Amino acid sequence: MSPPLVIKNGTVVNEDGMFKADVLVKNGIIVEVSPKIIALPEMEIIDATDRLVIPGGIDPHTHMQMPYAGEVTKDDFLRGTQAAVAGGTTMIIDFCCPDHRNGESLMAGYARWRSWADPKVCCDYGLSVAITQWRPETADQMAVITSPEFGVNSFKFYMAYEGTLMVRDDEMYRAMQECAKLRALARVHAENGSVIKEREIDLLAKGVTGPEGHTQSRPEEIEAEATNRACVLAAQANCPVYIVHVMTKGAAAAISHHRAQGSIVFGEPIAAGLALDGSHYYNEDWLHAARYVMSPPLSRDPTTPELLMKLLAAGELHLTGTDNCTYDGCQKSLGKGNFTKIPNGINGVEDRMSVVWEKGVHSGIIDPMRYVSITSATAAKIFNIYPKKGRIAVGSDADIVIFNPNATRTISAETHHHNLDFNIFEGIKCHGVAEITISRGRIVWANGQLQTVPGSGKFVPLLANSPFVFSSHEIREKKKEPRIVERLE
Amino acid sequence: MSPPLVIKNGTVVNEDGMFKADVLVKNGIIVEVSPKIIALPEMEIIDATDRLVIPGGIDPHTHMQMPYAGEVTKDDFLRGTQAAVAGGTTMIIDFCCPDHRNGESLMAGYARWRSWADPKVCCDYGLSVAITQWRPETADQMAVITSPEFGVNSFKFYMAYEGTLMVRDDEMYRAMQECAKLRALARVHAENGSVIKEREIDLLAKGVTGPEGHTQSRPEEIEAEATNRACVLAAQANCPVYIVHVMTKGAAAAISHHRAQGSIVFGEPIAAGLALDGSHYYNEDWLHAARYVMSPPLSRDPTTPELLMKLLAAGELHLTGTDNCTYDGCQKSLGKGNFTKIPNGINGVEDRMSVVWEKGVHSGIIDPMRYVSITSATAAKIFNIYPKKGRIAVGSDADIVIFNPNATRTISAETHHHNLDFNIFEGIKCHGVAEITISRGRIVWANGQLQTVPGSGKFVPLLANSPFVFSSHEIREKKKEPRIVERLE
Amino acid sequence: MSPPLVIKNGTVVNEDGMFKADVLVKNGIIVEVSPKIIALPEMEIIDATDRLVIPGGIDPHTHMQMPYAGEVTKDDFLRGTQAAVAGGTTMIIDFCCPDHRNGESLMAGYARWRSWADPKVCCDYGLSVAITQWRPETADQMAVITSPEFGVNSFKFYMAYEGTLMVRDDEMYRAMQECAKLRALARVHAENGSVIKEREIDLLAKGVTGPEGHTQSRPEEIEAEATNRACVLAAQANCPVYIVHVMTKGAAAAISHHRAQGSIVFGEPIAAGLALDGSHYYNEDWLHAARYVMSPPLSRDPTTPELLMKLLAAGELHLTGTDNCTYDGCQKSLGKGNFTKIPNGINGVEDRMSVVWEKGVHSGIIDPMRYVSITSATAAKIFNIYPKKGRIAVGSDADIVIFNPNATRTISAETHHHNLDFNIFEGIKCHGVAEITISRGRIVWANGQLQTVPGSGKFVPLLANSPFVFSSHEIREKKKEPRIVERLE
Amino acid sequence: MSPPLVIKNGTVVNEDGMFKADVLVKNGIIVEVSPKIIALPEMEIIDATDRLVIPGGIDPHTHMQMPYAGEVTKDDFLRGTQAAVAGGTTMIIDFCCPDHRNGESLMAGYARWRSWADPKVCCDYGLSVAITQWRPETADQMAVITSPEFGVNSFKFYMAYEGTLMVRDDEMYRAMQECAKLRALARVHAENGSVIKEREIDLLAKGVTGPEGHTQSRPEEIEAEATNRACVLAAQANCPVYIVHVMTKGAAAAISHHRAQGSIVFGEPIAAGLALDGSHYYNEDWLHAARYVMSPPLSRDPTTPELLMKLLAAGELHLTGTDNCTYDGCQKSLGKGNFTKIPNGINGVEDRMSVVWEKGVHSGIIDPMRYVSITSATAAKIFNIYPKKGRIAVGSDADIVIFNPNATRTISAETHHHNLDFNIFEGIKCHGVAEITISRGRIVWANGQLQTVPGSGKFVPLLANSPFVFSSHEIREKKKEPRIVERLE
Repeated sequence: MSPPLVIKNGTVVNEDGMFKADVLVKNGIIVEVSPKIIALPEMEIIDATDRLVIPGGIDPHTHMQMPYAGEVTKDDFLRGTQAAVAGGTTMIIDFCCPDHRNGESLMAGYARWRSWADPKVCCDYGLSVAITQWRPETADQMAVITSPEFGVNSFKFYMAYEGTLMVRDDEMYRAMQECAKLRALARVHAENGSVIKEREIDLLAKGVTGPEGHTQSRPEEIEAEATNRACVLAAQANCPVYIVHVMTKGAAAAISHHRAQGSIVFGEPIAAGLALDGSHYYNEDWLHAARYVMSPPLSRDPTTPELLMKLLAAGELHLTGTDNCTYDGCQKSLGKGNFTKIPNGINGVEDRMSVVWEKGVHSGIIDPMRYVSITSATAAKIFNIYPKKGRIAVGSDADIVIFNPNATRTISAETHHHNLDFNIFEGIKCHGVAEITISRGRIVWANGQLQTVPGSGKFVPLLANSPFVFSSHEIREKKKEPRIVERLE
Repeated sequence: MSPPLVIKNGTVVNEDGMFKADVLVKNGIIVEVSPKIIALPEMEIIDATDRLVIPGGIDPHTHMQMPYAGEVTKDDFLRGTQAAVAGGTTMIIDFCCPDHRNGESLMAGYARWRSWADPKVCCDYGLSVAITQWRPETADQMAVITSPEFGVNSFKFYMAYEGTLMVRDDEMYRAMQECAKLRALARVHAENGSVIKEREIDLLAKGVTGPEGHTQSRPEEIEAEATNRACVLAAQANCPVYIVHVMTKGAAAAISHHRAQGSIVFGEPIAAGLALDGSHYYNEDWLHAARYVMSPPLSRDPTTPELLMKLLAAGELHLTGTDNCTYDGCQKSLGKGNFTKIPNGINGVEDRMSVVWEKGVHSGIIDPMRYVSITSATAAKIFNIYPKKGRIAVGSDADIVIFNPNATRTISAETHHHNLDFNIFEGIKCHGVAEITISRGRIVWANGQLQTVPGSGKFVPLLANSPFVFSSHEIREKKKEPRIVERLE
Repeated sequence: MSPPLVIKNGTVVNEDGMFKADVLVKNGIIVEVSPKIIALPEMEIIDATDRLVIPGGIDPHTHMQMPYAGEVTKDDFLRGTQAAVAGGTTMIIDFCCPDHRNGESLMAGYARWRSWADPKVCCDYGLSVAITQWRPETADQMAVITSPEFGVNSFKFYMAYEGTLMVRDDEMYRAMQECAKLRALARVHAENGSVIKEREIDLLAKGVTGPEGHTQSRPEEIEAEATNRACVLAAQANCPVYIVHVMTKGAAAAISHHRAQGSIVFGEPIAAGLALDGSHYYNEDWLHAARYVMSPPLSRDPTTPELLMKLLAAGELHLTGTDNCTYDGCQKSLGKGNFTKIPNGINGVEDRMSVVWEKGVHSGIIDPMRYVSITSATAAKIFNIYPKKGRIAVGSDADIVIFNPNATRTISAETHHHNLDFNIFEGIKCHGVAEITISRGRIVWANGQLQTVPGSGKFVPLLANSPFVFSSHEIREKKKEPRIVERLE
Repeated sequence: MSPPLVIKNGTVVNEDGMFKADVLVKNGIIVEVSPKIIALPEMEIIDATDRLVIPGGIDPHTHMQMPYAGEVTKDDFLRGTQAAVAGGTTMIIDFCCPDHRNGESLMAGYARWRSWADPKVCCDYGLSVAITQWRPETADQMAVITSPEFGVNSFKFYMAYEGTLMVRDDEMYRAMQECAKLRALARVHAENGSVIKEREIDLLAKGVTGPEGHTQSRPEEIEAEATNRACVLAAQANCPVYIVHVMTKGAAAAISHHRAQGSIVFGEPIAAGLALDGSHYYNEDWLHAARYVMSPPLSRDPTTPELLMKLLAAGELHLTGTDNCTYDGCQKSLGKGNFTKIPNGINGVEDRMSVVWEKGVHSGIIDPMRYVSITSATAAKIFNIYPKKGRIAVGSDADIVIFNPNATRTISAETHHHNLDFNIFEGIKCHGVAEITISRGRIVWANGQLQTVPGSGKFVPLLANSPFVFSSHEIREKKKEPRIVERLE
């Protein structure tokens, strides 16, 4: 058990306000937030003068230790969560991908993920479960896994990766109806997998084998199209939908459009998409280019990252993730001679907090309160753990970051904490540094040193029916009921 | 052989101008258009004082004598073309639907259609061929049928009617690539068939069995979604695309969007969609409601028809068709107790010219030149028969209508020429009446009487590579070529 | 001094959450919010079982006791604030309109308004100051009145009412630059006054003298145009802007557009616009029609109210006001024979809370948390009084409403508390009733009875530089600095 | 009188078709267009093998010999029309700007322009008249000058240049109503002059004195705003409107928006805007930067030129002009030390035909038919001289260009025919060269040599009530009539 902790002289920032206050933590919980707290001798003291005291980041989109096509991502739940806390993130929501196509139950997959994560995690985590095929037993398993016992309140659907992860429209539509019933959120990877497959074949046939083929096989319109389709299907199913990794203007526009029609849609850009563009795919160094291979790819339009940030400011996009899914140079090289074999994925969990500050707050597009909203509070609300997470308030978990908005750091693979031989943000200088990270009341990162304990993080059950997502659901259901004309036939 | 014909004192209207002129016709061809033509004794004279002399209408979208699900549409090529000329339409482009799924070749289907049509048609016609499955032999057959010998320059794809006509995205994408190669146009019925199927099952399960279920199973967003998808796939395949029966604002918006991105997209609203809305599906009389069952359904939004006309005015939509596909009360009644069994289809070929005048010109939204453009000239250009068709000019076919913009007629099943016991436009009073219709120089409709001869119409071969559609194609192909990065690997 | 008050068994609703809790109030301040508070004998107890405990409404847009063109609005600060609390609103922000055109200083006008309001108000209030002309002394006076001593942090500009209130573009632009410097918000009434003037003359000349002339002189595009212009000018001046009474889809679209470009824009629909449409102007009863005369007028499009609510849900519009500005039948009749003489204004302050619940929450478009956001919390943030106002939290003012979401009431002039012989919402049945209203810890409305004390409300100074509005301002200023090219000339 | 002329073996391109044909010209008129014309001995023969035979360009927007602020543009009507024909343009529509503010009548200004132009022009021309103030006598003068005797069918309004040319909204609205009555077109220079004025003052005060200040004083939104406003005012006045020099995406979007609402709006991008962007204003060489000073300025967004061309392809923009308004280095230098004193204007009349081909047809965005539409035919229609101009057809004026789509030329001030020491397109290599230009049947440009005769061009009266613009006007007027509610008062 850690000693009580008092954070003094800082500026607390929540989604809805910022103010000078001291913060007292006991037993992993915030017990007081007030202008002046007298530190007792037994208390550990952090001086946060000129610092911001913000809720620890929540990264809603990671793939730690993820097996796919014979490879496993390099960041396991230990290295991945170490990287997280080193960057100011204190909770991740990881994707559990049961081999449902081959009959593995959602619960069995869940058990595998829990068994990998529980002994290793250095900060809290939750799980979101992918459904890769609609099977006779799927609906029942969805009902089981959304029970409090399992604590899953969202499902993920892939509209890409034909033949492995992709579901067809009718499968997704049925599953979304089930989600609506269970008050679970549908999360969607939106790309038109059928067209991608054809384009890949065509490009390879035309001799395009390098990483530039990756972006050419996935034109921006392909993402926008699928995003629109996902929103339409979700609206028909009366199911709230969350679009993961919004990478392009067109996808963002589709989200705005459907929100303005009254649909409940959330859009998640990721750190990579807020800071980088697709010119990397044309880098003359094969491996450099391959490092950036992820799906959907980085936008070819250099003005996209700023626009995505503006939409986060305007409330048309809602929270930021990373899609942290790390493969090293050796793994990436499996795609030599055939870009479709390059494992898809990039890093992000460590650098998101700095990157979003730099591109958002330091650029004058968003303010610190909105920063908290898009890095933790909104995620906490959507996944039904607010205000335990995502807020500096009495009763909340002491997942806290002492953030120095004036300090800078230059991102580099040489200093990062990923189990990875590269960093896609290499060389970017960011204002905004997480100087101290506190997880459940324990300092896990300070003075540039990790103080993590494997397994010290907890699995956080995510309960269905989040009020932030489903409060109007029942009335909406009634409004959507079919209308029958009574006729004398 | 008809005698020479001189049309005097009328106002000739073409797409690009209107002017007073006399018109002389010999051997089915217009041989003179000039301010004053002296009629010789052997000439037949038509006095067109206060009348407009316009190109005969071209209806690019009919289903005469169409077999589907055990039923055949009531208008065969005789009755259908009689109705056409009675309304001022002198050419139809009919859909030939080979049973390709079951192995029938495109050529065999084409031969069937020709054998039905040739002996019966009372005006000229062309064919557009539907592809309902992508098969190993399909590409070769597409190449054959687009040769001048067959004279087909467009293919149709259904994104709805799962299990019978519908093609999947990958099938459509491959076929579109083939279209692009052959310089043939892709025409698309755009609705998300997968979602419709699921909704139908759901509605029936909830006790919605009447025609109102038809509209409820096909929400407007479903059409907009598929329209957008079709445009995206076509753009990827670098294939010009033609969206048939644009029924909703959302579908029209998708078309505008992709055109502004530089895609070649044409949008075809139909007479029904320009004059009617979806309230009919809730009519208390089952059969009345069933009469309006077509897909996509009429819009629920009563402001849609006027908006579609405005978009025709603005050039964001391009030509008008009908989807004439007539089933009588007996056939419609097959869907009693199950709306999914109601044969889909409505009339239109006879009334289009009047309805478009009434809702377009008489309403002040478009002018007479634009009227000609959207009723004949643009169709002629797209299908590569301009200016033989679609223009009053020396050398053009003498497909001419003497149109009285000041006369009115009230549409009714009692007076129409369809082989049908109902008219969806019943009771609508239209300004703008085709008083005389001339097909290849012969008067086929005058004084309210048909003077048609079965088989007098000709099959018009539609040649590939229409300049209006494909003039910039080659350059576009070059711009789309993949870009390869040369690397030392 | 009132006794301590404990509210038991209710569901507290804040912008970011809803939860069961008891609330303890002492000396006008909330001192505890917790699951179970034991009531002491000296405490007054309110049982809120099955009720929501929400922050009192803040109406950011009223004109109490407003002199204009020789008439004064019927609701003075007594009757107006009584109506407010009877409906669950505990603070108003009223518009002070100095006669600046004729040389009255902003401070002198402010003093007049304070002298009218202070002795009468039954709940708290703040002031927003209109600037009706740009004069040499205006900038200095803006600086003075935004000092804490005066407590004004927003200015209002009229783009309509040519000759009395309207400012030209250059005047507004200069004033907006000044606002930006002072960190005060610009609020804009957006209509193209020049066109309206011309149309009024034209309509009167054509014999249109009744209230229908009001709507015909102010087509919807006129509002959309000015809204767009206001946003453009504000963006150029780097000044956050707040569009009052957003009445049409076009105006709302302009706001969304500029927000997505990165501008700081807030949009305020009003109760009338969320519940009514412009068909009233064609009512056969002159006085009925005249009752609805306000500017901009109610939308002619019956689908507008629902769309505005959806945009409030989506975050593209932000808070709700009323433009409460009441004239009785006698005053309205001044416009007999000339619609331009009908005093402009409608009621709303009493009914807003119920109307927004009915059209928003009860209709399934928004949830209760968003309801709090758009009825109080966002206003409090924008005007820099959050979380003193707009939140149920320890330390906040005890402006609280016990709200029964299941009760209904039917709005009527016979039962309302306005000093007015009509109610524009007459006959509308609303779910959602403010059963008890508490202002600064005192019950001022309960059991259908007012318990107000004139002058018991306080003037709330609104301080400049609201963090919610201006936190990113400094950086934005830097980014907008002119760029000079150094040249050897 | 020139001898008959036969153009052999070329491909005739009209707006609605392209075909191999010979063309025979007599007395300045096209008398035959047919597959094979036998040349008689007295005929001059042009061999157009592998060439296109297209209608001579019509530049609807020039300022030859224009006096403004003490300077006169360098291209007078001689040099200006010589440059025109050297580039393949055979008609210009020049702006006549009477000093109406100081009382000069429109007719007197017109007479001045005619006296300058008539003796000098080497090709046909027409006039459009600017109205710079609304005066008591203005309406009457508009009526006079639109009579056939004067031959003016359009008026121009400046929303910028406050203090000299700019009109206020109320002035423009009144004039537009008058235009509608007279069936004359309103043409608008759309920028918000009031904001520009303020920004200029501000920038100069901040030390921005160079040409970069020009673009900074005129942000893109300023043009979009005014374009939208112009469209709204025109729609209210039921007056067709033509936006000159559409330079930005925002302005183009405003045009599309209003067209889709049913308004009659035309958009004219210019050669400069289709080929260049605003980076020139930051050129280190003062004079280079100053050369590009025009209003609205070139877009800062490098993707704008291509988008404008795509909108020309899609039919959302309609024709191309140049705003040819040439000042030499000496004149430009008047703005040294104060960018607001730099005379506004650029060249274009000579290079438009090549630039539009290069950026449009050679880039695969438009086809040759659309090229003819946007370089001549649409202008001819709008200004009511079609098909005399803008078409290769029997009876049309023999304004013809022999165009070589495969030849290239590199634009340069050293070789151009302007009276100007610079060319904004310097160094751009264009495919598409006007090899021979024929004006009224006379060869005026061939083999790189001018063969012009001053005064050989004719003034072409432009008659009001162009059918292309006003055919639906009467019905629209009726639909806009005010609606009066009959009441018993």
